[in-house]
Amino acid sequence: MDRRQLRNNKEKVKVGIIGSKFEADIHAVSFQLMPEEAEVVAIASPTPGNAERLAQKYSIPRVFLDYREMLKEPDIEMVTITAPNRLHAQMTIDIAKAGKHVVCEKPLCMTLPEADEMIDTCKRQGVMLGYAEELFFTPKYVKAKEMAEQGGFGKIHLVKQSEKHFGPHSSWFWDMEQAGGGALMDLGCHGIAFCYWFLGRQKVKSVYAQLGTYVHAGKTEGDDEAICILEFENAALGMVECSWTKRGGMFDKTEIYGEGGVTYADLHMGNALPTYSEYGFGYAVEKAPTTVGWSYPVFEEHWNYGIPQEMRHFARVVRGKETLQASGEDGRVVIEALYAGYASAGAGRKIEMPYKPTATKPVDEWLKAKKS
Amino acid sequence: MDRRQLRNNKEKVKVGIIGSKFEADIHAVSFQLMPEEAEVVAIASPTPGNAERLAQKYSIPRVFLDYREMLKEPDIEMVTITAPNRLHAQMTIDIAKAGKHVVCEKPLCMTLPEADEMIDTCKRQGVMLGYAEELFFTPKYVKAKEMAEQGGFGKIHLVKQSEKHFGPHSSWFWDMEQAGGGALMDLGCHGIAFCYWFLGRQKVKSVYAQLGTYVHAGKTEGDDEAICILEFENAALGMVECSWTKRGGMFDKTEIYGEGGVTYADLHMGNALPTYSEYGFGYAVEKAPTTVGWSYPVFEEHWNYGIPQEMRHFARVVRGKETLQASGEDGRVVIEALYAGYASAGAGRKIEMPYKPTATKPVDEWLKAKKS
Amino acid sequence: MDRRQLRNNKEKVKVGIIGSKFEADIHAVSFQLMPEEAEVVAIASPTPGNAERLAQKYSIPRVFLDYREMLKEPDIEMVTITAPNRLHAQMTIDIAKAGKHVVCEKPLCMTLPEADEMIDTCKRQGVMLGYAEELFFTPKYVKAKEMAEQGGFGKIHLVKQSEKHFGPHSSWFWDMEQAGGGALMDLGCHGIAFCYWFLGRQKVKSVYAQLGTYVHAGKTEGDDEAICILEFENAALGMVECSWTKRGGMFDKTEIYGEGGVTYADLHMGNALPTYSEYGFGYAVEKAPTTVGWSYPVFEEHWNYGIPQEMRHFARVVRGKETLQASGEDGRVVIEALYAGYASAGAGRKIEMPYKPTATKPVDEWLKAKKS
Amino acid sequence: MDRRQLRNNKEKVKVGIIGSKFEADIHAVSFQLMPEEAEVVAIASPTPGNAERLAQKYSIPRVFLDYREMLKEPDIEMVTITAPNRLHAQMTIDIAKAGKHVVCEKPLCMTLPEADEMIDTCKRQGVMLGYAEELFFTPKYVKAKEMAEQGGFGKIHLVKQSEKHFGPHSSWFWDMEQAGGGALMDLGCHGIAFCYWFLGRQKVKSVYAQLGTYVHAGKTEGDDEAICILEFENAALGMVECSWTKRGGMFDKTEIYGEGGVTYADLHMGNALPTYSEYGFGYAVEKAPTTVGWSYPVFEEHWNYGIPQEMRHFARVVRGKETLQASGEDGRVVIEALYAGYASAGAGRKIEMPYKPTATKPVDEWLKAKKS
Repeated sequence: MDRRQLRNNKEKVKVGIIGSKFEADIHAVSFQLMPEEAEVVAIASPTPGNAERLAQKYSIPRVFLDYREMLKEPDIEMVTITAPNRLHAQMTIDIAKAGKHVVCEKPLCMTLPEADEMIDTCKRQGVMLGYAEELFFTPKYVKAKEMAEQGGFGKIHLVKQSEKHFGPHSSWFWDMEQAGGGALMDLGCHGIAFCYWFLGRQKVKSVYAQLGTYVHAGKTEGDDEAICILEFENAALGMVECSWTKRGGMFDKTEIYGEGGVTYADLHMGNALPTYSEYGFGYAVEKAPTTVGWSYPVFEEHWNYGIPQEMRHFARVVRGKETLQASGEDGRVVIEALYAGYASAGAGRKIEMPYKPTATKPVDEWLKAKKS
Repeated sequence: MDRRQLRNNKEKVKVGIIGSKFEADIHAVSFQLMPEEAEVVAIASPTPGNAERLAQKYSIPRVFLDYREMLKEPDIEMVTITAPNRLHAQMTIDIAKAGKHVVCEKPLCMTLPEADEMIDTCKRQGVMLGYAEELFFTPKYVKAKEMAEQGGFGKIHLVKQSEKHFGPHSSWFWDMEQAGGGALMDLGCHGIAFCYWFLGRQKVKSVYAQLGTYVHAGKTEGDDEAICILEFENAALGMVECSWTKRGGMFDKTEIYGEGGVTYADLHMGNALPTYSEYGFGYAVEKAPTTVGWSYPVFEEHWNYGIPQEMRHFARVVRGKETLQASGEDGRVVIEALYAGYASAGAGRKIEMPYKPTATKPVDEWLKAKKS
Repeated sequence: MDRRQLRNNKEKVKVGIIGSKFEADIHAVSFQLMPEEAEVVAIASPTPGNAERLAQKYSIPRVFLDYREMLKEPDIEMVTITAPNRLHAQMTIDIAKAGKHVVCEKPLCMTLPEADEMIDTCKRQGVMLGYAEELFFTPKYVKAKEMAEQGGFGKIHLVKQSEKHFGPHSSWFWDMEQAGGGALMDLGCHGIAFCYWFLGRQKVKSVYAQLGTYVHAGKTEGDDEAICILEFENAALGMVECSWTKRGGMFDKTEIYGEGGVTYADLHMGNALPTYSEYGFGYAVEKAPTTVGWSYPVFEEHWNYGIPQEMRHFARVVRGKETLQASGEDGRVVIEALYAGYASAGAGRKIEMPYKPTATKPVDEWLKAKKS
Repeated sequence: MDRRQLRNNKEKVKVGIIGSKFEADIHAVSFQLMPEEAEVVAIASPTPGNAERLAQKYSIPRVFLDYREMLKEPDIEMVTITAPNRLHAQMTIDIAKAGKHVVCEKPLCMTLPEADEMIDTCKRQGVMLGYAEELFFTPKYVKAKEMAEQGGFGKIHLVKQSEKHFGPHSSWFWDMEQAGGGALMDLGCHGIAFCYWFLGRQKVKSVYAQLGTYVHAGKTEGDDEAICILEFENAALGMVECSWTKRGGMFDKTEIYGEGGVTYADLHMGNALPTYSEYGFGYAVEKAPTTVGWSYPVFEEHWNYGIPQEMRHFARVVRGKETLQASGEDGRVVIEALYAGYASAGAGRKIEMPYKPTATKPVDEWLKAKKS
């Protein structure tokens, strides 16, 4: 990765963000929460006014309607992508070709050929392809992994990861053309990556998924409830549960089972201040419906998800201070498992890996079976 | 405070630490966790070898046996004190006279005249006197305060704060000559400061304390269990519970009661990963007895206490970027309440404030009554 | 107690209830939940229609407007009192004189002379005077006591008991003439009895109380928030917290601290099914404001408070199968401590026991000091 | 069911127990905890001394080595079976032919023909065949069902049930010849029955199971870890997790997800007294490894599982006071789902129901596939 460390080791990495909504805001605030390694200097978003609004909120000097214009700025070294899934591949390739490092939001892209092209282009261009899987940096989950590595649980044979809420914040998620999949793709990509990472990047041997559209059938033909079981090469299991149907606010939890012990890590109820309010207050937690009555407000939400730590890591990789911990290759493993998961739900059986997709987008592996 | 901002606004504040034990280690690591505003460049500790050991652990370049030597270093702008309570006043005065900013660990000092002299000297020398009460920066407690300020609980009439463990880490705490008091002084100083801060620095109107030496009478004549009730000018109550007798690891919890709601904030069980291990692992939490069996390991412990945030704040105050949020005056309020608390336990009655001490050290207000 | 066991040992004890509201309903349902030792055959309530309504709900055959008429029924062996506090003494005496066993709700009565007369009359008449302190029978608290007796915590030096909600269910509680005291009398009587019982009925040496009327000053001149510290003869502390100002539903919790361990027992959040509902459902828990949003519904509430077990115990005492575990003497200890607590709040100091009341009702010890 | 109510409606049902170990003890104590409807008068166990021991512990008058001798006692009306799974069918048939009502522990039996013969024989003999699934009577789970029926969660599409510990108490469970299956059969039978019952006895449409022997391969060829997904006719999912590998004591938890809400019911940590003890105490909870250190002791364990309530129900059914809520037919549904589950794990695919077994015992459906 030849372009790293070219600049003065002490200089902050200058960052551009593509996008202006929910996730772009999180990137912007995360760079400010851990400011010593990087700073956001530009935002690009095609809807007039959107980039300006975010730029003003975080005192970001430059805005662009077309991200390709932003890529011409010579001082920008790293660009983060928060656009809909179907745009990830093209943007990554454009960024890499402009000689800049890439941080791409999850899931990496829509198809395996896209993933391959993204990885290859970045390699050829000598730029980093960072895969923004924040669960690798979530402090509570990192602690679980440390305890596991210290032998606290003996040999681990089951890793459970679950993320649930009542549905995504942007409308494109409901549209399978833009998203490529439903809850399994949107939320399960976290859980699949997590199990893979937690178990030491063992190969995925098989995938089974149970999918359904239980609550939001009027809005989407994608899955809104998913259970996914992964078998790994060393015989351990990953179990991923994800849902767009869960009431009462965001839910993210991990459980680790070894022959010598267990640990439970809950990011929401398990970190919260159980609170009752007659009058309500500012904010409880992502996707919480109200702050009146009982609620579970969390504190320093972004930090507790690990996003500032993740962005700091990518900047440090750019400066050659750390080795990449969340790569395009990790993202590709997830995409392959998502195809296999959707295919499994369509076929009603466990799919052995490696899996060669038979449909364009992951979700189509399931939808075409449902329709047939 | 004329000495601030003299240097380049972008330069990190250079810090010296007095001490080399538990608390000094926490200071050193805290500055590294949030490195963008300050860096530790020196440690002073009178026991040969101690400063070296800590300096090596955190790559700190300079060590001193005598802190007065360290004060001669011209580039050091801020010095933090982690020495036993009885040394706080003299050290603060020496630091201030050397023209450097002071961060003094809790409790501020042993006596009210000491507190006055510390505050006056720093004022005269134009240096900051920061009072290292980390609960003002604890992220979970800061969230509770934000919800309160947003009106979530209506008018608040009761703030409870509790800190308990099985006894301090350094032997000088057990010696009343060096510590000036027992659990109420060591741990209650946090709770008293917290209630005062949470309720908007209303004047303390009265203090009642129930003290006893229940478990460690062989080790100390100080109190190892304390309940302390404070009445504030606006009629709200503070209730502080602290103990050196609590088994099973550190405990720090706050509860807020208003006419319109309640919130509970637990820093330990309430943030932990409930964990069972047959084999044990590295570390669970401050003062936990073991990691075998069930335990409540926490993650990013210093950050969750707020210590890096606190140190960052002091550095930013030095650079003129923030206004001091934890001052010598706050520490003095606590000392006065501690005198009143010990006097109350001695007299068996509520002590009205302001209170003019009748004993040398806070604990003597109680001990002399017990002995008479 | 000569009247016990006169009847066939296998026959159920026939019970009459005085009262028809909240607590009378609880008695009626509790006898049905554990039906093998007793059955309710009559209810007396002065308001026309009230006794009928309850009788119908629980298929109770006989109703009376005047409890004295009910006392003439020869087959009734035991009468339970759920009337306002000021009526407890006269009713107890009438029941005893009718040769029937008495179960009196908490607090036992209003004054110490009343308590003495109740105890003496029952003794003279050879009838049981059962004091309905259900915390002695609460299964979770009984487990805590068993663990303590098995040595799990070593020597215990601190017992905390807390009961809080947003104010009582019947209007007479707010009227100090009928209730004799506020939250300390209504809820603190549980906590005082609990600490006394848990610590093995050690003598109470001193009482300190902090009282205030923070939220309901428009409704009552009684205390709606109370903290009460009791010193026992063997040097252990009891700490009782009670409140009529706590939002979000009923709260009842106990904590035990010994030199060798701790236990926490929470009857509400700690037994509940954390639940989120958009639509609401039947019932969550005593005094919960709503079932929409997050709530903490409990299951088998009466059983988890221990009330059926308590009523069964009293019936078994009547049949000579068990020794009385909650007596008029226990109730008298509580009344004396309540006087001392109110006097303490008035005087701002710890009151040594035994205490000779100087006011008519407990609350007057405080009110007269506030007004002077 | 012609034999019911033949006796005086007020007379207690006389009960005989087959077995003398863990589960027989639970039956005996459960009848004593709710004694008003039934009493245990006899125990039969083939190992000399065993029945005597239990009989003495609970003051049970009659003991037998051969249960067939016990069946000759004319006054016994109901017999409960706690013997190994492979004996359930023969015993049930013998009891029914003796004209006595049957309560059979879970799982109902080993094979579907056995189940059919048990059901038919009892029907022909006019006796009750009660299936001892205590989760139908667990108070906390009953509350969850009540809330669901009151509409609190809207339409429910996912029911999760999990039971885990570190392996069974009797050695026959490890032997597939005697048990017929591993963790899925031993613990999953609870979860399958629970989902079926909770969702209103909708037909099971398909079953998928992931099984493995992760920790106890030296002891058993049965599964010690199982995840089982059931699709029901009304499109809802059941998810059953069970394990013989979970450290740290018993775990039993249910989660209900509807479009309008969620509830979580945890029978262990969720009811417990979080406790730390240096010295240990009597008993924490079923299968807990120790009471030293942190533990989660529960209170009134049998009652909180619902076993006394379940036994009382069966006695009331015998007396015609209630309609049977847990029948041989329920047990048969579970056996069929177990066959399908084991077959699914063998085939790596979802098995459609009804399923015609191809192996002798449930576990063989999986084992023969593994070996092939």
